[in-house]
Amino acid sequence: MRISELSRRSGVPVATIKYYRREGLLPEGRALNPTAVEYGEEHVQRLRLIRSLIQLGGLSVARAREVLDAVDRPLDAFETLGVIHHALPVPSADENGKGGEGGTDDDGVGSADDTTVPGGAAARVEALIKSMGWQISDESPHRPALATSLAALGRLGTDYTTDDLLPYARLATSTADLDFAQLDGIEDRIALAERAVVLSALFEPVVRLLRRLAQEDANHRRHDRRACGRGEPPTE
Amino acid sequence: MRISELSRRSGVPVATIKYYRREGLLPEGRALNPTAVEYGEEHVQRLRLIRSLIQLGGLSVARAREVLDAVDRPLDAFETLGVIHHALPVPSADENGKGGEGGTDDDGVGSADDTTVPGGAAARVEALIKSMGWQISDESPHRPALATSLAALGRLGTDYTTDDLLPYARLATSTADLDFAQLDGIEDRIALAERAVVLSALFEPVVRLLRRLAQEDANHRRHDRRACGRGEPPTE
Repeated sequence: MRISELSRRSGVPVATIKYYRREGLLPEGRALNPTAVEYGEEHVQRLRLIRSLIQLGGLSVARAREVLDAVDRPLDAFETLGVIHHALPVPSADENGKGGEGGTDDDGVGSADDTTVPGGAAARVEALIKSMGWQISDESPHRPALATSLAALGRLGTDYTTDDLLPYARLATSTADLDFAQLDGIEDRIALAERAVVLSALFEPVVRLLRRLAQEDANHRRHDRRACGRGEPPTE
Repeated sequence: MRISELSRRSGVPVATIKYYRREGLLPEGRALNPTAVEYGEEHVQRLRLIRSLIQLGGLSVARAREVLDAVDRPLDAFETLGVIHHALPVPSADENGKGGEGGTDDDGVGSADDTTVPGGAAARVEALIKSMGWQISDESPHRPALATSLAALGRLGTDYTTDDLLPYARLATSTADLDFAQLDGIEDRIALAERAVVLSALFEPVVRLLRRLAQEDANHRRHDRRACGRGEPPTE
């Protein structure tokens, strides 16, 4: 197929296809003559993966190249998923806010103690990983990100111990098992990579929205329970 | 205390305190004389809540005012949490990416069928809420957001049925119960509002990071299982 057909099939504009080709993300097509290049099904598939990585996954072109390199190398599915997993944007509180804590360090929430320094939070993350028996690589970006989140919560006066986090970690394990059940049976490496990105980028909001809905329901249930137990809902 | 002390105690710069006062988010202090205003503990507490809403929660000033109005009205904790819950930024796939789908509608992923139109996704959300027995208000922003996410996944060829989502919804209920256990026993309405915002804004990344860590572990476990079951890890 020509580039116009490739654009139609992949949903990627011609100019963007040319940009991905220049950046080395998309292999060259087969030159029919000096002005015509022929593309195949592998280009359609590749473009869909690139689009997933950049548009859905929010990866930079450089990060997308890392993932594509992993897909191109003779890595097994385990290693490919590992590369994708570490290349994805790391969740942080700053996504919503305008820079987390902001302002000064002295926020009147209490003085520093061992749980408010990053070291304390990092130690709790390690203890949690050990308690759960989780296998996590030293290069995982999620390990320090979790310590940073816990340290920020500590500075606001909400310290979570390892024991506080364990029930959440157990539910996370159950959720991750459901996630991997969605990848089972996909043997093609490009298809697997694409599904993993879609799962992380598009399905993560689904999981978060389900939690929000469940929270609204939990608020109702808590309210009903109080109303039944005490005769009247509390007005304070 | 004077405004400089209020700034030090709350961690909010003086100029920002004046801005919040002009916008009506923070009540006036008690005028001691034409040039000196006295602030109390209630102003420190209020500023901490405002900062949580805007800096951590990512709320606009207008949205923050809605929440503060709810806190000021004689609403019970149930209603206050409901207002906060609906005012928070709604999770979406666009946070990571550069506009979700992007490009054209014709993305070569398959033609439209009844599950890819938004109506189909909305019907699945309703069926899920009914199956779970969740009490969700008609005004919930999370209901249409979930339908939009499901429709986007459908356009990429990944259709989730209500049955696919049920196990995730059950885990979301367990997570929400843990969330509400964190709010139990907080009777003061301002403290409750502040904790609810902190929980949503700062603890949500913790839940997402735990899921990422659990996914890495699940990838390891899946790999180990395959390696043990088949002698050699698959190289394809």
